[in-house]
Amino acid sequence: MTTIFTARWVLPITTPPIVHGAVAVKADEILAIGSQEEIRAQYPEAQIRDFGEAAILPGLVNVHSHLELTAFRGRLEEPQFQRWIASLVQLKSEKLTDDDLLTSARLGCLESIRAGITTVGDTADATATLQALIESGLRGIVFQECFSPRLEQAEQSVQAIEKKLCDLREYVFTMGAEKRLRLGVSPHAPYSVSSRLYEKVAELSFEMTLDIAIHAAESQDELSLLRSGTGAFAESLQRRGIEFPAPGCSTVEYFQQLGVLDAAPLLIHCVTVNEADILLMKEYNIRVAHCPKSNAKFGHGIAPLITMLGAGIDAGLGTDSVASNNTCDLIEEARFCALLHRAAQGDASLLDPNAMLKMITIDGARVLNLDDKIGSLEVGKQADLIAIDLTRTHNTPHYDPAAAILFSCSGQDVVLTMVAGQILYEDGIVNSLAESEIVYTMRTLQEKLTNH
Amino acid sequence: MTTIFTARWVLPITTPPIVHGAVAVKADEILAIGSQEEIRAQYPEAQIRDFGEAAILPGLVNVHSHLELTAFRGRLEEPQFQRWIASLVQLKSEKLTDDDLLTSARLGCLESIRAGITTVGDTADATATLQALIESGLRGIVFQECFSPRLEQAEQSVQAIEKKLCDLREYVFTMGAEKRLRLGVSPHAPYSVSSRLYEKVAELSFEMTLDIAIHAAESQDELSLLRSGTGAFAESLQRRGIEFPAPGCSTVEYFQQLGVLDAAPLLIHCVTVNEADILLMKEYNIRVAHCPKSNAKFGHGIAPLITMLGAGIDAGLGTDSVASNNTCDLIEEARFCALLHRAAQGDASLLDPNAMLKMITIDGARVLNLDDKIGSLEVGKQADLIAIDLTRTHNTPHYDPAAAILFSCSGQDVVLTMVAGQILYEDGIVNSLAESEIVYTMRTLQEKLTNH
Repeated sequence: MTTIFTARWVLPITTPPIVHGAVAVKADEILAIGSQEEIRAQYPEAQIRDFGEAAILPGLVNVHSHLELTAFRGRLEEPQFQRWIASLVQLKSEKLTDDDLLTSARLGCLESIRAGITTVGDTADATATLQALIESGLRGIVFQECFSPRLEQAEQSVQAIEKKLCDLREYVFTMGAEKRLRLGVSPHAPYSVSSRLYEKVAELSFEMTLDIAIHAAESQDELSLLRSGTGAFAESLQRRGIEFPAPGCSTVEYFQQLGVLDAAPLLIHCVTVNEADILLMKEYNIRVAHCPKSNAKFGHGIAPLITMLGAGIDAGLGTDSVASNNTCDLIEEARFCALLHRAAQGDASLLDPNAMLKMITIDGARVLNLDDKIGSLEVGKQADLIAIDLTRTHNTPHYDPAAAILFSCSGQDVVLTMVAGQILYEDGIVNSLAESEIVYTMRTLQEKLTNH
Repeated sequence: MTTIFTARWVLPITTPPIVHGAVAVKADEILAIGSQEEIRAQYPEAQIRDFGEAAILPGLVNVHSHLELTAFRGRLEEPQFQRWIASLVQLKSEKLTDDDLLTSARLGCLESIRAGITTVGDTADATATLQALIESGLRGIVFQECFSPRLEQAEQSVQAIEKKLCDLREYVFTMGAEKRLRLGVSPHAPYSVSSRLYEKVAELSFEMTLDIAIHAAESQDELSLLRSGTGAFAESLQRRGIEFPAPGCSTVEYFQQLGVLDAAPLLIHCVTVNEADILLMKEYNIRVAHCPKSNAKFGHGIAPLITMLGAGIDAGLGTDSVASNNTCDLIEEARFCALLHRAAQGDASLLDPNAMLKMITIDGARVLNLDDKIGSLEVGKQADLIAIDLTRTHNTPHYDPAAAILFSCSGQDVVLTMVAGQILYEDGIVNSLAESEIVYTMRTLQEKLTNH
């Protein structure tokens, strides 16, 4: 059975916009794309779904999220980063049960689906998030987190991670979700993972063919720890009696020394990278998850995105967790990104609407090594697509659909979200998850997390 | 007849939040404010309107808009500022009739009302905008624009403006709108108004008791024109055969020399102001309309907001026109503002949610000299209030209402907009304007403006 999705605009992203366009979908794939006239003539028996004055485009790719932390939206407004992380870790371990993490991840999936996000690169203690993603119908990579700053625990940690990843892989296969969901590994950050563990995880990633994602070069405190063993992270490690010999270099150089760059990891944040780091990153084919709102909220600064892009490095956009954003809306993230860098560089010609739509679709797909399957509307690619309503007061009038989406829309204007041919969201209703039940459960969880 | 508006949270802004709060409204004024229990006991006969899991706060104050330019949303994506202005002026004069400007301003009013904006500081060729504002029920100041860079035309221009302002004042009185709407004058910008006209408009503002608003220190090209007679504006004036002797100083110093600062104008943008300018601004009690998204989109840079606030200067937030934003959403503007300055200064403690809610309410009111009437929920002030729904997926959970509004909401979460006791918007419907007709008319107008 073939369905044709039509709208005033179809934006395939890798080819020019089609006015009065159509996308024919069969099972989980894109069968054809073109003008309404030609596609309708080609498939006269197909069901037609017309979205009118709207834009159909590929599903959005969020290259960095933590869906399981959705319960902490607005809960941790501590401005100091090291204390924020410490509070988060404590609150998560003391207050959240496995069921709570599942509720939290499910709410994150709901929010993502409503905002037109179809693929996530999610970092998590993966069980709950994987379950929520399987239920939700979303696509993505789940990077199993590991933390262990103690050198002497590296062997034990990597064995535990390997075991967990094997179990999780089996779980994904058992659930028949292996076409949508892949596992990766995320040795959290330089201040929370020992050098020895980094070496071992890099080896593991080759043995198990795992993507790696690492929070890297995010803050000045991280840089101070590595360069000179000073700053808030250094002090925190010292207080806990953890030895951390400063390598005396940048995060990127440190990862090169440890062999981590050989695994071509996805580096999340990259705020403090310098020109030498960027050359290294290009040499090792490093991909970047740029999270401008999260970096801004923490006062970490402005990542040198324009320089990285200029060096030919692939970058996608990530919302990071809603504990630090506090919203998961990739259209607003793209708008913020474009405006932030234009302001900082004093250059209005940067990051135009087409570049930004690419960044949240095909570039994000490339960053997650999924661009053979998703990220653009092309025949044979997976039918991951969304429709954005352009008849609303705040996006009327509109002259160019890309400019309208980037500068006047938000996730709230999405009216259709489809992954692999399955409609996950339409007419204000998420089909794959029981929204009212999840929100109701979250209220109870919220009460438990409230600081009375 | 008294109505009590209740919600989980009432945020009076100038006093602490009230949990399970209530605001009693009679005619156009706030009669009482407190806990639901006490206010209901005080007015047992009053009608109750409960908004549940929502926040009630003062209506938002947009200190700089151009509602009549709403038809140009997304139409002018030219990145070079001087060419952008030239295109805008040309397109407006060649293509838009008076009826078109009215449609455009009405659409701007609709968008504002839906986003919880109750007061605007609007710059316009005022007739159409005044009519739209009168119809819409919104409050504000309309600054009648004047342009005239030719020294020899100053006398003629000021006479025309005086005549127009007298007529407009009479119009406002005839329509019985003088409690809601005030007139001001806006000699556009240093590159579009001669020094002589600035002197004359400053005098006129004293004679007629007019607020003044001026686009000032917005771009490097403006600064170059004043400092050295160079840059895109200088070249454009030369091409048009217009003499513009460079005063050799900053915009703020130039306005001091011309006596303009004596009129304590509202200065819009202030991106290029330096420390000396800021001292002068403080001395003359200058108020600032900060428009961070517009400034960012044009690549003008980042206004030194933190320094200006530190110097004790009053600043409010403005969306500017949707021709350069491209949305009129003061909540998103506030979020962008907080994140931009945190990123630029590397300081997460700046511009916290309470500071930002103040900026878009009471600070904005002070900037427009309206803080005796609006900007906070206080007994005796005008009943300008809004309700923001906090039950949506993207703002669930929430722990602190101010953080939830600033970081997780947008104008689309507003569910009630009231001005002077009149409900302008509720349950998705604008009461004061015929939305479907305006949007329909805009479609035709959009067709006329489309570059085929």
